[in-house]
Amino acid sequence: MQYSFAERTKSMLASPLHFMRSLTTRDSFISFAEELPAEELFPLSSLEAAAAAVISKSPAALQYGDPQGYLPLREWLCNNFKQTKQMELEASQILLTTGSQQAVDLLARVYVEQGDPVLVEHPTSPGFLQILRMQGAVIVPVEGDTEGISTEHLLEQTEKFRPKLLLVSPNFTNPTGVLWSPERRKAVLDICRKRNILIVEDNAYGDLHFGGMTEKEFYNKYPSLFSLDEAGQGGQVLYIGSFSKTVVPALRTGWAAGNKVIIDAMVMAKQLADWQSSHFNQCLLHYLLEYSAFDIHEHIQMLNREYQTRLKLMTELLKRPAWKNTSYNVPEGGMFIWVKLPDGLDSALLLKCALDKGAAFLPGTLCYANGEGRENIRLNFTHPGRDELLLGMNLIGEAISEFTARS
Amino acid sequence: MQYSFAERTKSMLASPLHFMRSLTTRDSFISFAEELPAEELFPLSSLEAAAAAVISKSPAALQYGDPQGYLPLREWLCNNFKQTKQMELEASQILLTTGSQQAVDLLARVYVEQGDPVLVEHPTSPGFLQILRMQGAVIVPVEGDTEGISTEHLLEQTEKFRPKLLLVSPNFTNPTGVLWSPERRKAVLDICRKRNILIVEDNAYGDLHFGGMTEKEFYNKYPSLFSLDEAGQGGQVLYIGSFSKTVVPALRTGWAAGNKVIIDAMVMAKQLADWQSSHFNQCLLHYLLEYSAFDIHEHIQMLNREYQTRLKLMTELLKRPAWKNTSYNVPEGGMFIWVKLPDGLDSALLLKCALDKGAAFLPGTLCYANGEGRENIRLNFTHPGRDELLLGMNLIGEAISEFTARS
Repeated sequence: MQYSFAERTKSMLASPLHFMRSLTTRDSFISFAEELPAEELFPLSSLEAAAAAVISKSPAALQYGDPQGYLPLREWLCNNFKQTKQMELEASQILLTTGSQQAVDLLARVYVEQGDPVLVEHPTSPGFLQILRMQGAVIVPVEGDTEGISTEHLLEQTEKFRPKLLLVSPNFTNPTGVLWSPERRKAVLDICRKRNILIVEDNAYGDLHFGGMTEKEFYNKYPSLFSLDEAGQGGQVLYIGSFSKTVVPALRTGWAAGNKVIIDAMVMAKQLADWQSSHFNQCLLHYLLEYSAFDIHEHIQMLNREYQTRLKLMTELLKRPAWKNTSYNVPEGGMFIWVKLPDGLDSALLLKCALDKGAAFLPGTLCYANGEGRENIRLNFTHPGRDELLLGMNLIGEAISEFTARS
Repeated sequence: MQYSFAERTKSMLASPLHFMRSLTTRDSFISFAEELPAEELFPLSSLEAAAAAVISKSPAALQYGDPQGYLPLREWLCNNFKQTKQMELEASQILLTTGSQQAVDLLARVYVEQGDPVLVEHPTSPGFLQILRMQGAVIVPVEGDTEGISTEHLLEQTEKFRPKLLLVSPNFTNPTGVLWSPERRKAVLDICRKRNILIVEDNAYGDLHFGGMTEKEFYNKYPSLFSLDEAGQGGQVLYIGSFSKTVVPALRTGWAAGNKVIIDAMVMAKQLADWQSSHFNQCLLHYLLEYSAFDIHEHIQMLNREYQTRLKLMTELLKRPAWKNTSYNVPEGGMFIWVKLPDGLDSALLLKCALDKGAAFLPGTLCYANGEGRENIRLNFTHPGRDELLLGMNLIGEAISEFTARS
């Protein structure tokens, strides 16, 4: 038969993200393209014990649950937010989602009308861009520097487009790894407050910080926009996160936290989207966090020590001759280094060459709404182990050399 | 702040489905409102063993997986479809989703434009209606009888609205429990073929049939529209189902199967919606089905014997005096009895009264796009055990008597 897809679908099927998926299913590759945590650091024995305990305790864990998410896990989050993040909220203000991606998508579905202008960082997460395109939003980029998005440009774009929504990741933003300064956080919140712009604050990477600070110290120094907004009661910010980077991705448990009016609308959308996320996975996580020997704070400290080591190795490798004339900032946390290639080198061409050699990265164009970013690549340093880092960086370095030798 | 939701959100927040959710979180109720399987029949020990095996085998089960879904589980489905359902397809033609609800939602997101007319059964699943409303579709109901939707009315509505999509559940459709006749299946497929109407065939309830037939015998007698469409290669039908009713709901694993062009578009939407469903749950299910002592065919036979017993008890209870002047057809499978109340009795008023007594059901209006169904209620018979069935039916019977005594 002749299919008649929606117009937006046709344009999205041509998207390069579609191509990226093919990478993830090729086992023989060394890939720095995705944002995978290191699976050799997963708390497997604790998870196994938790699964056994949850299943044997009651069949209720395997039944349908609350579409808003398992209440004890939402309560655990409230407690955790209060203890480490200066955030005061109630369980009714949290919706559990299938990863943080779904939290952003549900918000977009209830909030964004076709043609609505929406502000994003420039560059920004490929996942954000896909969601906004699907919703038919007009994507409005806001330039930034090493302290966060520019307040001048934010004001300018706000004046010009009258947007009602801003999507940001102030902690080690994807892809640049920028950690917003405390002053910039306050200034951006202030601007959005005065102009009635809802902020979606994605904290996917905030727990992965390498300065040796405890979680509490980190969030004291770099308070979330959410906590700056009357400790979370201002209603200006929707706070998004997940356990994917700090426990394991495959339990697909993320959250949105915010004003109850917003959360209620998202729960409605959640029900029609998939009725609910896995109640079993939520029970399992709750058991792990509340009753088992697993200590998430210690676990995160361990992850951060290990990821810092990998980042150090990657930055050492970036000093090798092949990478001469590239430039980058070394992030203080997160999962990526954002590298500017030597002048004139196109990341799409480089990727083709690197793939032939057996290594992959994310080409920068996927992080821009407008086709910019040809000279940038994003390198993930959390997934590859030492040997993979050495080999993969060598292979990409070789590819770069081949291009630069020619020019 | 002043929130500015999308227009569609405002109207959906007023929906009565929103109210239904509050029922599910009240523990003290006997509820016939939902579509829950019997949790005392869950294969707990097999699931516990499978979880342990999967976690201890490799950390890969807890990492991100393929957004399209775990390949070995898709292959298992292909094999199962071939053996029991006369369907021939490849793993690339299947997308694993978070329950069957997400499969329908993803299809609607890629296929339905604001204002597009979409055909549904009359009455139909509340979940279908919510999805279509969110997508801004014009919902076009097609009347039916005990053999399925009426071909005359289908032709009439098709002529009038020129729809591009039809949503149906030919096996024990929600809420009426109708099992479409083989002839009707062929006739409907034929009409849709000639008019280029994509059919979404939801088989959520097909495995729950009480005539004593094996799966193979049942699907031979009542072939899916998908299998009638050149054994699934015609591309006219998207076939949807899940393990929620046959294994457990909390693993949230459903699927869409169809032409690769449609599946590819849905995979794109799946990635932006939540990147992927739980890879861990998919690995666990695959282990359970492929390597453990659990036999899904025997398990389904056991479920069907038990559910048939519960259905018999409910129909006995419907013969009691309080239920005089109600009418219903006894279904041959599925999860519901659809009851017409005595003349003049409004299901919303009855529900209020029944809730005060401690019992709930689904009011019929939720199954109609246009406010009809005030005189209907949907009763679930799979979840309540014997005692709950007796007590719950008594309580609702009391409520009916109070109303009929007055008039």
